[in-house]
Amino acid sequence: MNNTYCVVRDMDTRSMALEAKKASILMQGVSTELKNSALERIAGTLLERKDEILEANKQDMERSAAEDLAAPLLKRLKFDEKKLNDVVEGIHSLIGLDDPVGKTLLARELDEGLRLYRVSCPIGVIGIIFESRPDALVQISTLCLKSGNAVLLKGGREATLTNRILTQAISEASMETGMPDNWINLLESREEVNEMLALDEYVDLIIPRGSNEFVRYIMDNSRIPVLGHADGICHVYIDRDIDVKRAVDIVADSKTQYVAVCNALETLLIHKDSAEKVLPALKEALDTKSVEIRGCERTRRIIPCKKVSEEDWKTEYLDLVLSIKIVDSLDEAIEHINTYGSGHTDSIVSRDEESVKRFLEYVDSGNVFANCSTRFSDGFRYGFGAEVGISTNKIHARGPVGLDGLVTYKYKLIGDGHIVADYASNKRRFFHRDL
Amino acid sequence: MNNTYCVVRDMDTRSMALEAKKASILMQGVSTELKNSALERIAGTLLERKDEILEANKQDMERSAAEDLAAPLLKRLKFDEKKLNDVVEGIHSLIGLDDPVGKTLLARELDEGLRLYRVSCPIGVIGIIFESRPDALVQISTLCLKSGNAVLLKGGREATLTNRILTQAISEASMETGMPDNWINLLESREEVNEMLALDEYVDLIIPRGSNEFVRYIMDNSRIPVLGHADGICHVYIDRDIDVKRAVDIVADSKTQYVAVCNALETLLIHKDSAEKVLPALKEALDTKSVEIRGCERTRRIIPCKKVSEEDWKTEYLDLVLSIKIVDSLDEAIEHINTYGSGHTDSIVSRDEESVKRFLEYVDSGNVFANCSTRFSDGFRYGFGAEVGISTNKIHARGPVGLDGLVTYKYKLIGDGHIVADYASNKRRFFHRDL
Repeated sequence: MNNTYCVVRDMDTRSMALEAKKASILMQGVSTELKNSALERIAGTLLERKDEILEANKQDMERSAAEDLAAPLLKRLKFDEKKLNDVVEGIHSLIGLDDPVGKTLLARELDEGLRLYRVSCPIGVIGIIFESRPDALVQISTLCLKSGNAVLLKGGREATLTNRILTQAISEASMETGMPDNWINLLESREEVNEMLALDEYVDLIIPRGSNEFVRYIMDNSRIPVLGHADGICHVYIDRDIDVKRAVDIVADSKTQYVAVCNALETLLIHKDSAEKVLPALKEALDTKSVEIRGCERTRRIIPCKKVSEEDWKTEYLDLVLSIKIVDSLDEAIEHINTYGSGHTDSIVSRDEESVKRFLEYVDSGNVFANCSTRFSDGFRYGFGAEVGISTNKIHARGPVGLDGLVTYKYKLIGDGHIVADYASNKRRFFHRDL
Repeated sequence: MNNTYCVVRDMDTRSMALEAKKASILMQGVSTELKNSALERIAGTLLERKDEILEANKQDMERSAAEDLAAPLLKRLKFDEKKLNDVVEGIHSLIGLDDPVGKTLLARELDEGLRLYRVSCPIGVIGIIFESRPDALVQISTLCLKSGNAVLLKGGREATLTNRILTQAISEASMETGMPDNWINLLESREEVNEMLALDEYVDLIIPRGSNEFVRYIMDNSRIPVLGHADGICHVYIDRDIDVKRAVDIVADSKTQYVAVCNALETLLIHKDSAEKVLPALKEALDTKSVEIRGCERTRRIIPCKKVSEEDWKTEYLDLVLSIKIVDSLDEAIEHINTYGSGHTDSIVSRDEESVKRFLEYVDSGNVFANCSTRFSDGFRYGFGAEVGISTNKIHARGPVGLDGLVTYKYKLIGDGHIVADYASNKRRFFHRDL
């Protein structure tokens, strides 16, 4: 184990959080230039230390294979030269993005010489718990750096060695360019995560990425605000006036393009007038992908399939299973989605502009789509550079969360000896003129 | 008791929350015109029903006086013709404010024919627990209406009859103009509040306004996000280069202009080079207002006063008490504020531009001021029309929360048959062009 890294790990969770808080105060004032040069240095260091990084990942892979880690997880754990080049390229595009900090969101003169500004600023300390992919560590920590936030990271156990060397490389490279000590640190156990959840005096926001149960556990066990999503129960609704091939293509892509992700389709709703046209062609397309269909009674009169249960409407399969319900109207579809959905991503297929407008207006989800796959719901595809996760929260940040979701704002009021007594006595009056 | 009102009260808390959720979906699509005409009708109805309202308040006042309610609380409970005219005037200025819903915050073409919009929309159902002032009920519910949110209100027990008649008047007037049934309802007991805290499937945000203990209780007993503040431990820091009279005026105003409020001063920090100049004059000014001073050792060497304790730095007095500490530097002041403050409002008095800049940058509070009283921290004074409260949260909304803090956004993505497989296979590429 590397010595420098051992020094950092001498701290307990509370100390790490306290040091992160101190670092976060200093990071409030770090210039865009300094942040970008730190990002440059990080990118360079990752390339320079390529051999060490790949070796650490090789050891993680070998250990995990010996422990019979499932093949898809092994694939996600792998951090090879291509992945390294990808994250370095990601850092370069992050450098090109606008600094989200220091933007004047409101400027108003309240009275002669009394000026109010709302200015964006970092949130402070962010705790992020992510899955096995080591590339996520680089993306998340560099997003935090660019947005001026200190970060406590917890990755998957499988990736321990890779995460250590990556954290160390990022930490050292950024400190060399003047970023404060301990703006980034790595937690390594579930116990440490539990300790972090209690540190609401230091940690301002938790972003968990993991299983539904794990996210719910965190929400139930911390006073710290949690940004993210537990479930991704996404819907496609096929309206009355449609092109059959297009509808089938969108459903097939939403369901099968990548099945184990939160923005994959779980429940299909079909207007009764479209069911006979769409269902046979759809079954044919889904059969080629080995998708199991679970249908309502009316669906089963048109195509052979398993019977759906009430439980299915509430289930995120993350698997090659699709539940189907035939509905009498657009409004029934909207109501079904607002009742059983998770507020993640829902898409309508329709040629009727009024239907599209109504669906986008009344479906109460972070991402509402028309005539495209639910799989587009993603920070990269939206052009945010990267994302720390997708939020189904209704406050702060919704949908894919990029740099914009990692800042808050403060009000700055600059006066010239102004006191409130003068306004209470009507000696002076506010005029509220936007600047 | 009024019959119509009894009908509404037949619902239990869960039903009220469910109906509010349904109403909130319909409110997503209500036009600005309809919301403004509902507000007009509410203002008219409140004036028409003046006699009933004042009579209900008279009964609340008499009952509360008989129950020996403290004089300041009785004063807050009073809802007379002047207060009624004030809230009606408030509604008219709310009508004049921009609709916060339906604003396009981002518009981007991801690829040919695939257009992404980030559009502001209501949050959904908001639960608000407020103090005894009945005028707060009118302000809060009309802010919710204008921002398209359904609302569950819980006022003080003293104001029961006044709150009932106001809720009934607002509910009926708004429904006559086409607002959905049950967008507003009143809870009347602590048990109902506790029930609401468990209804995270229907209620999207809780805004509590009350004692520190009560706000903490709510934060600890609900999965629903809570917006607001527990403590208001506000500071003034008097720097080295100052005008003594100005410093004394700002401290006196911050401490005594209205003592029992969250934006009143609790701890004064003074640079060591200013202490001898400022403290005698300050003591003279505060003595005329009967303010008790608790000072650090160095303060006590300059003026006679009680000895401050560690506990004082963490205490929101809401009373005529001021703790004073002499510091060696601006940075010591900033560190004290970031350690003991509550992130509410902190002000620097200084003629040095660099000091001001540093203070505004590194004090990690929702409202950071220079050369003016902490008492300016308020939605009305900021020109927001009104506020539902002041937030010390670091996510979603910070500082005084007006209409802007009562909305969220959704992403709308409109395609033309777009599927992700085409991008995964490099058949198509994103170009991300802002519209």
